[in-house]
Amino acid sequence: MLTLHTAPGSCSRASHIALEEAGLDYQARYVDFARGDQRQPEFLAINPKGRVPALVTDRGVLTEGPAILAYVAALAPEARLAPTDPFDFARMQAFNLYLATSIHVAHAHGRRAARWSDDPAAQASMAAKVSENMSAGFDLIEAGLDGEWVMGDAYSVADPYLFVFSGWLAGDGVDIARFPKVADHFQRMARRPAVQRVLAWEAARAG
Amino acid sequence: MLTLHTAPGSCSRASHIALEEAGLDYQARYVDFARGDQRQPEFLAINPKGRVPALVTDRGVLTEGPAILAYVAALAPEARLAPTDPFDFARMQAFNLYLATSIHVAHAHGRRAARWSDDPAAQASMAAKVSENMSAGFDLIEAGLDGEWVMGDAYSVADPYLFVFSGWLAGDGVDIARFPKVADHFQRMARRPAVQRVLAWEAARAG
Repeated sequence: MLTLHTAPGSCSRASHIALEEAGLDYQARYVDFARGDQRQPEFLAINPKGRVPALVTDRGVLTEGPAILAYVAALAPEARLAPTDPFDFARMQAFNLYLATSIHVAHAHGRRAARWSDDPAAQASMAAKVSENMSAGFDLIEAGLDGEWVMGDAYSVADPYLFVFSGWLAGDGVDIARFPKVADHFQRMARRPAVQRVLAWEAARAG
Repeated sequence: MLTLHTAPGSCSRASHIALEEAGLDYQARYVDFARGDQRQPEFLAINPKGRVPALVTDRGVLTEGPAILAYVAALAPEARLAPTDPFDFARMQAFNLYLATSIHVAHAHGRRAARWSDDPAAQASMAAKVSENMSAGFDLIEAGLDGEWVMGDAYSVADPYLFVFSGWLAGDGVDIARFPKVADHFQRMARRPAVQRVLAWEAARAG
């Protein structure tokens, strides 16, 4: 059995979508950041990092979005959620890594700036640069997209991962329309039944 | 043919060590950050992100350390540089992702704080918190190590990656001796012939 610990709207949404797309038997558990669930002992016993996603499996707990995404793809090869060719798989991982190490980090300097400075003025200064950094990152992503999906013709777990971060642009003061291919991709994702099921699950719990 | 673009002492050192361990036919190309090589048009044509590592292959360019590390392991299965079991592979990737998204990011707030704020006072404030964040991250790593190598008994590409970041602790004002298992791992890595060949290559060019 697989249990995904996920917070609505967070990067763990991508792992949730991937599990839906894979057709695997799993449960989703709501982690309420506003209530501080991620700092409770019960959650820290699952993931000492106090972050989502965390995927509980029969063999132990997996963390870190791109690692979980690739694992979900490996568990359901018939769903074809990752390239089987090693070079293409590495290209997909490189794309997901860029989202994790640059885009997610750029975004986090808005509401999570306290991770990197205790000074409120410095935190405000970081928050003021978020839209610039998100824009620069999405310029690179836009330039690299070629086809319906991140990997071209084939849908993969890179697509829900991009979908999460594209969805953060508005809140970061960036108009997604500046990136026409990203904006098309976002709409294409939003029409997928698996995505709609996950968004409905989140909405039911956030209400 | 494989060509790795690498900067001495940077996170690309891990990819360089992995190529040596794999016994693959490759070239290493020195990227001199002090000279600004990474911002030159010739390098940006290879990696528009202006970062290392970048691995040029017959099929295109790969970027992002953990993606390159896993690809190098896949190219040389006989070298056994990554687990073949999907869950263990995902655990290795999760470890590498934590280094990339948390440890590398924590470290970067020292000399690279200008990425996240234009204000010199804010940059200084971020630099002042680096040792605290590196320590907290390595507390988690120390708690998770169990065995000679990151994955336990089996050496993998997670080991050179950890070796790079352990090597940054002193410069970040953190005594590696605070983390006995990490310190042992660092010494064990430093004795490997592949590591010594890479360090000698770097030293010859930095002179």
